[in-house]
Amino acid sequence: MARNTERRSALADAGIRVLAEQGARGLTHRAVDVAAGTPRGTASNYFPSRDDLISALVGRIGERLTPDPTRLSSHAARTPDRDLFADYLRDVVRRLSTDPHVPLALFELRLEAARRPAVAKALGAWRQRAFEDDVAFNDESDLPGGRTEIALFHYAIDGLMLDNLTAPIDSGLSVDAAIDELVDRILR
Amino acid sequence: MARNTERRSALADAGIRVLAEQGARGLTHRAVDVAAGTPRGTASNYFPSRDDLISALVGRIGERLTPDPTRLSSHAARTPDRDLFADYLRDVVRRLSTDPHVPLALFELRLEAARRPAVAKALGAWRQRAFEDDVAFNDESDLPGGRTEIALFHYAIDGLMLDNLTAPIDSGLSVDAAIDELVDRILR
Repeated sequence: MARNTERRSALADAGIRVLAEQGARGLTHRAVDVAAGTPRGTASNYFPSRDDLISALVGRIGERLTPDPTRLSSHAARTPDRDLFADYLRDVVRRLSTDPHVPLALFELRLEAARRPAVAKALGAWRQRAFEDDVAFNDESDLPGGRTEIALFHYAIDGLMLDNLTAPIDSGLSVDAAIDELVDRILR
Repeated sequence: MARNTERRSALADAGIRVLAEQGARGLTHRAVDVAAGTPRGTASNYFPSRDDLISALVGRIGERLTPDPTRLSSHAARTPDRDLFADYLRDVVRRLSTDPHVPLALFELRLEAARRPAVAKALGAWRQRAFEDDVAFNDESDLPGGRTEIALFHYAIDGLMLDNLTAPIDSGLSVDAAIDELVDRILR
């Protein structure tokens, strides 16, 4: 069983790599087997349809996006204020920037969602859950920002990440400075 | 000559459709000919390499993103304030939302830029020019917002558009309300 879970995760990680490196159209069971170094047919065994494969990728992306609990608890002793929240956001963006396959794969899936309703459904449900979790997290931790602010942060941080990973504009702001400005302004 | 220009635009529009509907990997000269209804070989005649084709698409996307001058002049009599700027942004987002092939094609090219340096170069140069134009426009029209604010708007509006076009979260904010909140907060 443990071995199966490991194999599933390894196949999903290979799928994330394929998405990031070849785009959504390159995502086939065959390409996942090649990237994972598994015998032909393995990915199809674990994820019979392309929708199964995509659901598994969404799940795995969610796991890889979840912050390391030891990092969170190192924050927990601090006052839940604007500065702590800015630190969280900087952490998230830094983590994604050093592991760019995850955000690139997610952007690929979002564009695929515009073309395929089944992907839109899986991804939309996952994004909504992540949004509600973020709202609840700020609320429970007494961090500033409610639904409106969290939504504005989602938009702005997505755009900032996309800029940073693709064909960035030089605005004079570093990524960290942009996050600081966004926190100051969105939280007012 | 005029016919050539028309043909070039029609082929580029077909390429934008292909990008939006099939993703970056679907973008081949053959697919552009099929979408444009032109004889096989026409797209290759106009745009010999894939990089030529992509440059033409970037140029055409730029044309289609440029606001109608009559719309701009209808704004020109108004006081250049926060409300006028919010109206501009709402116009841009509304225009893009009713013509989603253009923003989707642009997002596809941005992800392609993460994979191919030639695309990153063409797209990066174009995005930088568009950013400088936006900064100059606000400055010359006495609209509020300098380089920092324009950069933050670029990120936030990109993220909002991507959300809106793909697997949107329900945050309780409409697109127009989100733009209003962003203008209030980013301009302070």
